[in-house]
Amino acid sequence: MDEPGTDRLETFSDGVFAIAATLLVLEFSATPGPHLGHELRRLWPSYLAYVTSFLTIGIIWMNHHHTVSFIGRVDRTFLFVNNLLLLTVAFLPFPTGLVGTSLQKHEGEQAAALAYAGTLVVMAGLHQVWWQYARRDRRLIADAAPDSALRAVDRAYWPGLPMYAAVLLVALFSPLAAVVLTFAIAAFYLPSAALFDR
Amino acid sequence: MDEPGTDRLETFSDGVFAIAATLLVLEFSATPGPHLGHELRRLWPSYLAYVTSFLTIGIIWMNHHHTVSFIGRVDRTFLFVNNLLLLTVAFLPFPTGLVGTSLQKHEGEQAAALAYAGTLVVMAGLHQVWWQYARRDRRLIADAAPDSALRAVDRAYWPGLPMYAAVLLVALFSPLAAVVLTFAIAAFYLPSAALFDR
Amino acid sequence: MDEPGTDRLETFSDGVFAIAATLLVLEFSATPGPHLGHELRRLWPSYLAYVTSFLTIGIIWMNHHHTVSFIGRVDRTFLFVNNLLLLTVAFLPFPTGLVGTSLQKHEGEQAAALAYAGTLVVMAGLHQVWWQYARRDRRLIADAAPDSALRAVDRAYWPGLPMYAAVLLVALFSPLAAVVLTFAIAAFYLPSAALFDR
Amino acid sequence: MDEPGTDRLETFSDGVFAIAATLLVLEFSATPGPHLGHELRRLWPSYLAYVTSFLTIGIIWMNHHHTVSFIGRVDRTFLFVNNLLLLTVAFLPFPTGLVGTSLQKHEGEQAAALAYAGTLVVMAGLHQVWWQYARRDRRLIADAAPDSALRAVDRAYWPGLPMYAAVLLVALFSPLAAVVLTFAIAAFYLPSAALFDR
Repeated sequence: MDEPGTDRLETFSDGVFAIAATLLVLEFSATPGPHLGHELRRLWPSYLAYVTSFLTIGIIWMNHHHTVSFIGRVDRTFLFVNNLLLLTVAFLPFPTGLVGTSLQKHEGEQAAALAYAGTLVVMAGLHQVWWQYARRDRRLIADAAPDSALRAVDRAYWPGLPMYAAVLLVALFSPLAAVVLTFAIAAFYLPSAALFDR
Repeated sequence: MDEPGTDRLETFSDGVFAIAATLLVLEFSATPGPHLGHELRRLWPSYLAYVTSFLTIGIIWMNHHHTVSFIGRVDRTFLFVNNLLLLTVAFLPFPTGLVGTSLQKHEGEQAAALAYAGTLVVMAGLHQVWWQYARRDRRLIADAAPDSALRAVDRAYWPGLPMYAAVLLVALFSPLAAVVLTFAIAAFYLPSAALFDR
Repeated sequence: MDEPGTDRLETFSDGVFAIAATLLVLEFSATPGPHLGHELRRLWPSYLAYVTSFLTIGIIWMNHHHTVSFIGRVDRTFLFVNNLLLLTVAFLPFPTGLVGTSLQKHEGEQAAALAYAGTLVVMAGLHQVWWQYARRDRRLIADAAPDSALRAVDRAYWPGLPMYAAVLLVALFSPLAAVVLTFAIAAFYLPSAALFDR
Repeated sequence: MDEPGTDRLETFSDGVFAIAATLLVLEFSATPGPHLGHELRRLWPSYLAYVTSFLTIGIIWMNHHHTVSFIGRVDRTFLFVNNLLLLTVAFLPFPTGLVGTSLQKHEGEQAAALAYAGTLVVMAGLHQVWWQYARRDRRLIADAAPDSALRAVDRAYWPGLPMYAAVLLVALFSPLAAVVLTFAIAAFYLPSAALFDR
């Protein structure tokens, strides 16, 4: 019996990312009535939160999937951290729904935005721990992975935590701005940095 | 580190399509009571909307899956457009539920049908952008893909946007007719055009 | 461009079966209160309906997966029938929830059981059409598939429709007996007949 | 037609594990209002139950995936037991939600904790039956699997049932302690014992 590889970790992770993104739609609700058109327009904060979280999960998943390709073996600590990371991702539909609904109702916006940003901070922190644990002294790195590829992942991963910490700070002053900033990170920063850095 | 291939994009996409289709069932609800039989028959617009959206997602997924086989590499713009396309597909259960419920209650039908048709228009538009971005000057096309296959995909994709724009127009006059037309497109047009054109 | 194979059909189908089975749990609900223990015991019809539908989907999925291995190519009619079959399977959580709730509340049991049995009849009928369409004159059968294997699938598939028609008949007299009979079919008949017949 | 292998069993199982874990998030709910921050802090038992069940499903899935690699063929009894195991795993979101809500409301905690622990006992029992059935006289074991690997799985599996029986006992006295103990098992015991024993 060899040291376990990354196959079973990848299948489980792939499933959780795709399902978490698709479950986001269940946070929408509207009651058909004579003013449905008006009600659907009033849902705009939920649309914003939905698009933001969907893009974020999509990009995080691609980063995870890409980085796993440099990992040659796993150990129990790594599996545990991976599961913690996945449960944070799978939790995202809950604060996403809260942010949308609270911005519509103008009630509880700050608490909702802090919960949302806090989840993203934990996610970015765990992703960093996940990578550093595997990468330190090439503990779990595949022999074939060149150092330059590892340094590219380093550069792609390190801004995650400070960026989402900034989102958390912004949420203290403007919940809406915090969501817009998260959207901008998912749309402009993440794809360029994490997947195409050389 | 090579240019990233399409594997990670495909796994994520496959998952989102299958989950979005299966989540459609959660839009049904009925309360068991002495008139349950009557209530279940009154749900017919929800059955129609369910079948229409399920078939549409199923066919779109097969087209996506088929077309990806001609794509040899991806870049950041393509990944971003792919994620936008997926989030539109994953959104479909929400307007599908609205269309079914509003047609039953005879309230808000037009707003619901416009939301439904609007989602389909955005989806068809993004699918077209997705394909044209990859295909222009064979930017992301695999070397082995023959031009005849690309032209077959062109012919299969171009009617999507005008067809769903027509659904949007019809929704202004008859919400029910808009859903029936969407059903007809999924049942009769899409399978023949997109997958078996030579 | 060759005639399309069964790969994309299988991935989509596998996802829908697994998701439909797992969504069944969402039909349960109970309100924590001082009598929660009593309430949880009163849910027994929902447990029975859950186990019955989960086993049924599990077995149908294995039959589908097994039979697909004899199919070498697909055409547009086959894809359409496959999608109809999948949307029937994905629909099952709705009548499963109705059957459980109505048997608890002693209201609307017959309508719920007829909806449940009716869904199973449609599913068995579509599965039969799906197979007969592929098998007639070996229209879509892989060259390597021996006739004896096809005859084994024939023998396994033909009793599905009459069995679920019997469930529908029983539902007219006893909704509970109809669910118990469906459970017995999933537990005793399907595994032996469909997968291990030679 | 050969004896069926484990491929179709694995695909279905992988899907169910990932979906069940990700559906756990749907048990959360909170209403945005002026006291949302307070309300979100009061949800701590739901967070605890969520993390506990997610980690448990993640680890059980890895054990299942790992053990299947030693199994070379399946029979109808094994498939049936595997489906029973999966339906128990897929059921876990329901008692997980109950435990969280009842600990918040201080009502029905014992019934909820007993339902939760009872589900885990059934799951551990079925996992043991699943393994013993395959392993007895190497009934379904692949020829290449060494006896030492089988003994490692034996050692990893046998404590499951007594551990969760202990959780059930503890639930009679302290529902909260039962959940904490389940968390400790998922965090500390399962990863070390089941996956890395030699």
